[in-house]
Amino acid sequence: MNRTELVAQIREKQTYLCVGLDTDITKIPKHLLSEANPVLAFNKAIIDATRDFCVSYKLNTAFYEAMGSKGWDIMAETFSYIGANHLKIADAKRGDIGNTSHQYARAFFETLQADAVTVAPYMGEDSIRPFLEYDGKWTIVLGLTSNPGSNDFERLLLEPDPEDFLLDPDIIHGRHTEHLYERVLTTVAGWGSTGNLMFVVGATQAQELGSIRNLVPEHFLLVPGVGAQEGSLADVSKYGMNADCGLLVNASRAVIYASAGEDFAKVAANVAREYAVEMAGFLNEFPFKS
Amino acid sequence: MNRTELVAQIREKQTYLCVGLDTDITKIPKHLLSEANPVLAFNKAIIDATRDFCVSYKLNTAFYEAMGSKGWDIMAETFSYIGANHLKIADAKRGDIGNTSHQYARAFFETLQADAVTVAPYMGEDSIRPFLEYDGKWTIVLGLTSNPGSNDFERLLLEPDPEDFLLDPDIIHGRHTEHLYERVLTTVAGWGSTGNLMFVVGATQAQELGSIRNLVPEHFLLVPGVGAQEGSLADVSKYGMNADCGLLVNASRAVIYASAGEDFAKVAANVAREYAVEMAGFLNEFPFKS
Repeated sequence: MNRTELVAQIREKQTYLCVGLDTDITKIPKHLLSEANPVLAFNKAIIDATRDFCVSYKLNTAFYEAMGSKGWDIMAETFSYIGANHLKIADAKRGDIGNTSHQYARAFFETLQADAVTVAPYMGEDSIRPFLEYDGKWTIVLGLTSNPGSNDFERLLLEPDPEDFLLDPDIIHGRHTEHLYERVLTTVAGWGSTGNLMFVVGATQAQELGSIRNLVPEHFLLVPGVGAQEGSLADVSKYGMNADCGLLVNASRAVIYASAGEDFAKVAANVAREYAVEMAGFLNEFPFKS
Repeated sequence: MNRTELVAQIREKQTYLCVGLDTDITKIPKHLLSEANPVLAFNKAIIDATRDFCVSYKLNTAFYEAMGSKGWDIMAETFSYIGANHLKIADAKRGDIGNTSHQYARAFFETLQADAVTVAPYMGEDSIRPFLEYDGKWTIVLGLTSNPGSNDFERLLLEPDPEDFLLDPDIIHGRHTEHLYERVLTTVAGWGSTGNLMFVVGATQAQELGSIRNLVPEHFLLVPGVGAQEGSLADVSKYGMNADCGLLVNASRAVIYASAGEDFAKVAANVAREYAVEMAGFLNEFPFKS
């Protein structure tokens, strides 16, 4: 699914919701455990119920890998079931030397037939290029994540260029400095295009999202961690939306585990619909013109 | 395999070689392709041939994931075949928010029964803790890698503490500064112990290895990228060895693809033996006392 198609889906459905299928067999409704393949049955029911309210599904590979080879079959079958009208994201956070990243790209783009894969930036350009080389596929690089550990390294301040010291004394007072995640965003942006590269940007602080939008004005941002309870969707949309929407906002547990009863799919659909209704409002309110 | 057992293996065999099973079906000897499971047959033959010359095997998960669910079965069968006398490393470079890293830890430590898994540090503490919580298992965190992309982020200089500016004018001339990978090493070292935490340290520049050894004097270091042709094993051993050896030096393609003929296992054994002989010399020459 290319950018034009993705934006068309957003315009048509008036939603930029991504449903995260972080499916854990210990958390799905008990009545499904009698199915031959409970996790796949759960995923299919959630997909059927939420299709109209989202433009993307994200499979968190960890939950499937914990099941061993069977989990990989379920990922493949789930991606196949989703079909061509939703952006299929493998949330894998991979990244290794070029030769190895090429094998990861094969695993997710060819073997699993995902449209997009999340990638960690630590190892630099040759760890990311092999993903970007796939025509018609997306590479979604970690920028700023929403977990507490984002303070440990992502938010570290970098040493300013020594040349700048001489020109501008403000720098040594801590202004004009750059965080690691900002360097990641601007550096990685130079390796791909707005048609094959997105960034993961956590939404814990809306003002950070605004400054990130200034650094990468055109790229799509995948925003995790927006729970219904946090009321932050308005801020994310206000600070993050661009003329093509430019946002995929993920909700996982808030949607898929909204009910543990036999009505789980119906309740998941209701929660996804609520997100979509809210999103339709923001699409009309903010810069995106539909 | 705990630290005492690992060091005992190194003393007994007089080697600190890790053989990297980056097995690619397009690169294994053609005569194996008639086997029911060529990749597993190749791995078993290499393991049988090299067992006596190494203390560890490292499976690069990307090569197996590219084969889909069958690859995961082969990983599990390969780890099982290796047995209890070698450290079994899943070179997976995972890392995600705590909830998800917990699933990755389950995948590698429980489902695949690996002794150790490589982890990327970008997302910080809560992405690494779930691995460290497994008793008797090892977490191997990326410090400095040996690929060209290590210059993009790992070697970035961090801003010195503003307090230090006032005390020491040398700092603003670029001395006393710290690279991102150095901060990763010293920060992550505080989250685990020398008995459950190792670091990946690339060996492209031996003097860097020396300064890394000063930062983490006691930890084991997993050193990739030492090819027979580079002649760097002597430098790695000289700058990296500590009183418990403290090194696992990986060789992948140089060993497993040493011959593409029917003699592949025998030739792989010869190459592994050559490494081991060289290592036995360094074990006697440098601080490690056997």
